[in-house]
Amino acid sequence: MRSEEIQLASRPQGVPNNDNFNFVEINLPSLNSGEVLLKTLYLSVDPYMRGRMREGKSYAAPYELHQPIVGGVISEVMESKSEKLIKGDIVVGFQKWARNQVVHESELQKIDPSLAPISTALGILGMTGLTAYFGLLDIGEPKEGETVVVSGAAGAVGMIVGQIAKIKGARTVGIAGSQDKIDYLVNELKFDEAINYKSEHFKDELASACANGVDVYFENVGGNVSDEVFKHLNVHSRIPVCGAISAYNLQEDIGPRIQTTLIKNRTLMKGFLVGDYAHRASEGILQLAQWLKEGKLTYEETIIEGFENTPEAFIGLFKGTNLGKLLVKVAEPSNH
Amino acid sequence: MRSEEIQLASRPQGVPNNDNFNFVEINLPSLNSGEVLLKTLYLSVDPYMRGRMREGKSYAAPYELHQPIVGGVISEVMESKSEKLIKGDIVVGFQKWARNQVVHESELQKIDPSLAPISTALGILGMTGLTAYFGLLDIGEPKEGETVVVSGAAGAVGMIVGQIAKIKGARTVGIAGSQDKIDYLVNELKFDEAINYKSEHFKDELASACANGVDVYFENVGGNVSDEVFKHLNVHSRIPVCGAISAYNLQEDIGPRIQTTLIKNRTLMKGFLVGDYAHRASEGILQLAQWLKEGKLTYEETIIEGFENTPEAFIGLFKGTNLGKLLVKVAEPSNH
Repeated sequence: MRSEEIQLASRPQGVPNNDNFNFVEINLPSLNSGEVLLKTLYLSVDPYMRGRMREGKSYAAPYELHQPIVGGVISEVMESKSEKLIKGDIVVGFQKWARNQVVHESELQKIDPSLAPISTALGILGMTGLTAYFGLLDIGEPKEGETVVVSGAAGAVGMIVGQIAKIKGARTVGIAGSQDKIDYLVNELKFDEAINYKSEHFKDELASACANGVDVYFENVGGNVSDEVFKHLNVHSRIPVCGAISAYNLQEDIGPRIQTTLIKNRTLMKGFLVGDYAHRASEGILQLAQWLKEGKLTYEETIIEGFENTPEAFIGLFKGTNLGKLLVKVAEPSNH
Repeated sequence: MRSEEIQLASRPQGVPNNDNFNFVEINLPSLNSGEVLLKTLYLSVDPYMRGRMREGKSYAAPYELHQPIVGGVISEVMESKSEKLIKGDIVVGFQKWARNQVVHESELQKIDPSLAPISTALGILGMTGLTAYFGLLDIGEPKEGETVVVSGAAGAVGMIVGQIAKIKGARTVGIAGSQDKIDYLVNELKFDEAINYKSEHFKDELASACANGVDVYFENVGGNVSDEVFKHLNVHSRIPVCGAISAYNLQEDIGPRIQTTLIKNRTLMKGFLVGDYAHRASEGILQLAQWLKEGKLTYEETIIEGFENTPEAFIGLFKGTNLGKLLVKVAEPSNH
């Protein structure tokens, strides 16, 4: 059987562009015992993937040139030589950006489509939700009445962070890059305040929104925006460092060094990956699903249609156009 | 009674100089109930005091202009209206840079001079030792076989950090600024390696000393030296941020932002002050005294003679000339 996959054609210099990706027709192998043939339904495009497009050691091995990009994928089982999965099952895992692929059962987790829309397995009930949940609660530890600031607040992780902070009784301030996003955060997600970092009054607006200082800063963006937030940190503040999207396309990320700020405020700053919490994933998913059911949590997806638009969708992450989780829809589930 | 105190004459721009300090003759008040008259024996000069010479909020209130500098002081009780302290007692506390002063008993802790030389109350059995002890063990949490790097390694805190790391079974790498210091760290304190950051081969020497990466980086200096150490951090590394002496005299401290490094390695970085551990001080002092007695720990002091040389001693901190704890000896204890 034939399939098509997206390979890394060249390593991006600065912002990725279409030339960095190559669509390649391939032959799929026949199934061995334990393997299934998958049809891709949804692909996840995420900022962290930019890091894997660089050469050199990072927390995950870099993508290799002329090899397929790998990320979060929701698929349907089309054929099975597995004893755990049958035709028609919906599964999620880290797979190739491909229309079809052959994967071992051990790489896949089954999704129950009756619980929630299946796309949530890449979003609020998947890596995205767990990133927000563990980063905020395990490192940020927001307490009632504290001020929690989240950058990239209208992004997939950011909007969940803000809502969980509200559930925990914190005052929540979101930072985002357009008036539409600001309105959405305040009106739909009930953030206490939301600020546009592109506003010429950003510094003043931030100072005013953080009049009592910042107890938790959930870091998604880095750069100038975060430098400004750091000026408002309270004593014993905490900074879960989830991402720094402003830096991913830079050769050098230069700005104020952080040490004196950390000493002055005895701030804890910690980088994390959701994978560090793999052993607690089910705890997180249960809690997130519960909040979703109780209506305490909502989510937003931006869905781009068509496998051929995957590179464009990924590139769009760095333009800040998406609201919430950005997904590519590759195919409809079959009717069984 | 007359005394002399050192006031902040002006706020330093860059490296402090003698003009920033003013020696002022004053009249001491008579003693109220609970108060004692003190004669200063030793003054402590410490890098953190530079921060208090700036205007604006920091972890401690800034020193006020035309008011005395306050820091760690060891004194002898000359007269007492306290029920807790008698003439001849040796005490330690945060007092003025002054030859004599009147202080309430609640501001003072009595020292037992039979335990160790009294100057250790400002050093290894005082704030300095406790800074090393809690910063390294509570935040750094070094484990057997791990690599611990300490900058400012020949400074008061750094040399204790390295020795405690050795006690905990870690491989210890010190960074300092002269061949004499390097030799002292390796030959006297038994650091596994010591590197001169002024060497033209610093980067290579650091890379070679940290061939297995850096698990704990005890941060005393900041700046370029630390930027270089950060390149060698291991996954799940920890950075107790104790000081950043390279930044204290700068208006702006610009360099690589840290966020992507923290994410890549899931590094924990935390600023701290020894005061955060005040409730555990006796635990620390007992353990440090025990190690001292067992010969597992040694210490070094640089003692400048004469109250009039206090500003010069403080300024010397930023030239990196001191080995170990820097003290000013103001007077001999009386013979009783």
